[in-house]
Amino acid sequence: MHKLFVIKIGGNVIDDEDNLSSFLDKFAAVGDKKLLVHGGGKIATRIGDQLGIESKYVNGRRITDAATIDVVTMVYGGLVNKKMVAQLQARHCNAIGLTGADANVLPAIKRPVKDIDYGFVGDVVSREASGVSKDPGIVSLKTLLEAGLTPVMAPLTHDGKGQMLNTNADTIASSLAVALSPYYEVRLIYCFEKKGVLENADDNNSVIPLITKDIYKRLMNEKRLFDGILPKIDNAFAAIDGGVNEVLIGDAADLQQNVTAVTKGTLIK
Amino acid sequence: MHKLFVIKIGGNVIDDEDNLSSFLDKFAAVGDKKLLVHGGGKIATRIGDQLGIESKYVNGRRITDAATIDVVTMVYGGLVNKKMVAQLQARHCNAIGLTGADANVLPAIKRPVKDIDYGFVGDVVSREASGVSKDPGIVSLKTLLEAGLTPVMAPLTHDGKGQMLNTNADTIASSLAVALSPYYEVRLIYCFEKKGVLENADDNNSVIPLITKDIYKRLMNEKRLFDGILPKIDNAFAAIDGGVNEVLIGDAADLQQNVTAVTKGTLIK
Repeated sequence: MHKLFVIKIGGNVIDDEDNLSSFLDKFAAVGDKKLLVHGGGKIATRIGDQLGIESKYVNGRRITDAATIDVVTMVYGGLVNKKMVAQLQARHCNAIGLTGADANVLPAIKRPVKDIDYGFVGDVVSREASGVSKDPGIVSLKTLLEAGLTPVMAPLTHDGKGQMLNTNADTIASSLAVALSPYYEVRLIYCFEKKGVLENADDNNSVIPLITKDIYKRLMNEKRLFDGILPKIDNAFAAIDGGVNEVLIGDAADLQQNVTAVTKGTLIK
Repeated sequence: MHKLFVIKIGGNVIDDEDNLSSFLDKFAAVGDKKLLVHGGGKIATRIGDQLGIESKYVNGRRITDAATIDVVTMVYGGLVNKKMVAQLQARHCNAIGLTGADANVLPAIKRPVKDIDYGFVGDVVSREASGVSKDPGIVSLKTLLEAGLTPVMAPLTHDGKGQMLNTNADTIASSLAVALSPYYEVRLIYCFEKKGVLENADDNNSVIPLITKDIYKRLMNEKRLFDGILPKIDNAFAAIDGGVNEVLIGDAADLQQNVTAVTKGTLIK
């Protein structure tokens, strides 16, 4: 089985040109098969502001109305994605930019309205439920990977009825990692603003190198993890339960180590 | 040899929601392999205006400065392209949106500065010169077509050094049609605002059904063609000289006829 690295980068990499350029150098140099998922960054908010589109929040959570889904479709799916693809091509990495609508690689449903109407936000349909082996989107994604292409995914899906949907990039990364795990030995790498899962949130030297379910239970019992990291670890274990080999949470700057056996950051297995 | 339809639509289809929807119905229903190239339409100008980016012209020709290439990258490559892909997916057409940078399907060079600096405008490198059979971008495009996918091309290319470039959609369509002609029996269809090449520019009933090189010479000698159509016909003959089977110039509304033997519009061979 070939190795496949599914690598997610967030706003801290995308928003800074030097950070991005340095990350793309390292990403292009990864020799195995790879897939990049990028978040949005602050640029959609800036362009939305310039276009006079007000950011709306309900209970502190952002709402994607009709004007906002157009902005994120063009900024994430066009500007951010295509610039990244062109810059990877310049580094001889044969990138192909995608959203969930392209080749239907990631269908979703518009989040059902309960207490809050989040607007055009996509919830990814569980791949386990739908039967991965018959999933034409995953078959297409595999065709691209086998042809030597490197998919670059924007944080967008679609509802199958013609509507684009704003979707969390962490979820896209874990969903694709799970769906591709029958075909590849997948390591899912979440690059974020810290060096890994920290015992002490303010000390980048306190990285926990390995978390298994047993270790996780113990750390929880001893209340040694800060709250903000818990959803990321839960997400990581969900990916592993779905068939992903291992998940790594670390710093984009450490990517070169993190595609080897000698990892920096937190390995979850 | 399989048939392949390379179909180009312009602003008159893209700018009108009803026209676009009706076109996509017909396009999705085409049974053979197909590839769509879309122009930009007026929306980039509108969004550029809203963002306070001034449209610049020299001698009546538009200049693509750094701010403008960002706008067209996000509007053509993101908003227009992805909406079209999602709407084709809703019609069970397995579309995949691309720019020239994606999978390197269409590399170009920034137009050299002579009298005028057009800015970030791409001139497509002739495929004949570079040797089609070794062209990895065309090999990738063929892989997508063979996997049952329908490429949807935005009017954007890249320079191979990380820069996106604004590129004429007619040229993209003829360039891809030529490059794919060793593998498919290609009909290139230019959909525009008239019913075909007209003998009388004001009379949609005066369509010339067939133009060969001999007929073209005669029509030119008799001065029976209006000036505006000449570049399109020259472009069409260039495609045919490059290996494309036939070119059709017609109305998007007549697409269903124009993918059959009984065409409406002007067939050029």
